[in-house]
Order: sequence, then structure tokens, then C-alpha cells
Amino acid sequence: MKKSLGPITIIFPAPVMIVGTYDEKGSPNACAASWGGICSSRPPCLAVSLRKATWTFRNIIQRRAFTVSLPPRKRVAEADFFGMVSGRDLDKFTACGLTPEPARTVDAPIVAEFPLIIECRLRHSIVLGLHTQFIGEIVDVCCEEDCLNAQGLPEVGKIDPIAYVPTVRSYYAAGEVLGPGHSLGQVFIPDRGATG
Amino acid sequence: MKKSLGPITIIFPAPVMIVGTYDEKGSPNACAASWGGICSSRPPCLAVSLRKATWTFRNIIQRRAFTVSLPPRKRVAEADFFGMVSGRDLDKFTACGLTPEPARTVDAPIVAEFPLIIECRLRHSIVLGLHTQFIGEIVDVCCEEDCLNAQGLPEVGKIDPIAYVPTVRSYYAAGEVLGPGHSLGQVFIPDRGATG
Repeated sequence: MKKSLGPITIIFPAPVMIVGTYDEKGSPNACAASWGGICSSRPPCLAVSLRKATWTFRNIIQRRAFTVSLPPRKRVAEADFFGMVSGRDLDKFTACGLTPEPARTVDAPIVAEFPLIIECRLRHSIVLGLHTQFIGEIVDVCCEEDCLNAQGLPEVGKIDPIAYVPTVRSYYAAGEVLGPGHSLGQVFIPDRGATG
Repeated sequence: MKKSLGPITIIFPAPVMIVGTYDEKGSPNACAASWGGICSSRPPCLAVSLRKATWTFRNIIQRRAFTVSLPPRKRVAEADFFGMVSGRDLDKFTACGLTPEPARTVDAPIVAEFPLIIECRLRHSIVLGLHTQFIGEIVDVCCEEDCLNAQGLPEVGKIDPIAYVPTVRSYYAAGEVLGPGHSLGQVFIPDRGATG
């Protein structure tokens, strides 16, 4: 039996995106956001929703660029911190001992200690209400070389990433691998035999 | 040292959203989508991006409603199947032995066997390229009663949900709890003492 919980904002899982931007003086900032993710394959785009009150909102409007650095499990406290205070009041990088480094392809900083980085150029801003959704075209993705697998792709076990579950407000590690996409479901595809 | 991988669509984690819709005859369909998630708190909204070629795309335009059913780990093969074939060609519910049931608040079906359901009314359609992003206002969320915790919120351990990692194309279980949000980061907040 299902129970109605009303219009709450819950999903499993949400990403923990550390959004890097520069302000008008060139000072780096980073904030944590979980409303968003990949939203388009061609062009490759990533969406992140932010409240107008945030310093990052202002920076993205001004610089039209941002990065998303994905924190590893050992940096979950730093990631949480990036979502607790405003860059208007504090140099968050210094406060938590992480290093801002210029992105290679866009006008925004990355978190140097984090293994996987998505560099975006702003394409659309869509006002949804309390949040505005920024859609950035992915210009490049960078990954620590020792986190790549034999195919040259990021390996989840080496990145050791985290997920967030809103409403219940908890961080989770990645669990076990359940299997490959576009493959596990094969068992349900009807056998059409020779009739095509 | 970071290596550039080019503009690929990778993130950790992406959700596995089984999007339920009715076609013009009232036949239920479900497809799997991982481009999306919560995108706004007020109004509560969820985004899902779909290619124009999909049956679900057509259904959402016509009915202006959809649901997102979140599959438990034991249904990962069914979830994968929902993303492998088109509802144009096949009754996917029958093929994989799951049950469509009308949502309580919107004109769309849910997957009865899945524990957590998000019911949405279409608010915006944004053409991004190959994908169009549908933004639905969350009208209600329903959860199996035996998956709720003492606070009446969905409990991740009981829902036993799955995540997807695009590009590496693998499904993952939820891992261990790392701690509460807006709390772990407290340790980095400077002590401002009596000076305020």
C-alpha cells in the first residue's frame, strides 16, 4: 500500500555537484548543488539549479561559465561545507583547505583535489521559481589519470564518489556494481524468431 | 595529473527514472531516463530529458503529465529493459511482467511494483538539441508504507534503489551512509566567537 507524502522534492540519487565560479574580482568560489545533472547528449549539456540569493548565481550570470567538480568520499565534509555558507561572506576554499585552479577551457575555477571535473559554458538560464536552472554546454571533462580504467574512462571504484538524498538529507557512497546497461534487460526482449 | 576526455556526458550518479505515460488510446507506457532529476524546490519540479523519437516524448506532449517510478535493486533488469525498446513496438509492462496502475493525481500510469513514485504535471518543454527537457511540477510523491522511516520519510535502505553511471554504462546499488547533510561540513565553519 502506498502512502501519499505530498509534493516533496525527493529522488534517489542526486549528485553532489561542487560548482566553481569566479566573481567580478576574479576570486574563486564553490558551492554545493544537488538539483541537476546531465540534461542533453547532443550538444552535451549539464543543468544546475541555483537560488538567486547565492553568490554563484551572480557569478554565473556575469562570467557565463562554471565548472562542476565531483567530490570523492574522503572529501564529503568539505563538499557539505561548500553548501553551508556563502562565498559572499567567506573564502570557502581557504576555510576548508582545498585548492582552486583555473579550468583549462572555461572562465571558472575547479577544485584541484577532486578527481572528476566537468567544464561548462552557459547556454540557457531558465527561471523556474525559487531556483533558476542554468544549462551549460560541456566543453571538456577532466579526470585524474589514476582514476581511469583500461578503456580510458573514469572508474567509479577509483573516483569513490558520493551521492546525496534530499529530504532525508544524507550522503551515500557508491554501492556494488549491479551490471551493465542496455544488457541486463535483454532477457525480457521477445524472441521474434524468423518472422522478424 | 588530470587528463582531458573531451565533452562527454558523464556524472556520478544519475538516477534511473522510469517515466510512465499514456498514449492517445490510453495505453500505458514506461521508458527509462537518466538525464534529469529535481530542478526546483518552489514550486517543486522534476526535469527529464527525452529524445523526440521516443513514444514517451509524444505522450507527454499530448497528455501533459508523467510519473517517475524509482526501481528497487531487484528490478534492475526490468528497469534496463524499459530503456531498450520502444513502446511504439511493444507493451513493455506485459513483456517484463510489471503492472501499470493509474497515478492518483495525474493522467499517467505508475509502475505498481516500484516503491517510490513522483507524479508530475507538465510545466515547461525546453528544446536543447537531440533532447527536449520536460519540466514537471511535482503534484504528489507516493511511497510504500513499509519503506517509510519513523519520521514518515522514504528510507533508502528499504527502498534499495539503484543509480546509473552513463558513459561507463553501469548500474550501482546505494552504498553505505556517510552522514547527514548540513552537518558534516560544520567542522570547517570559522569560529567567529564573540565578535559576531
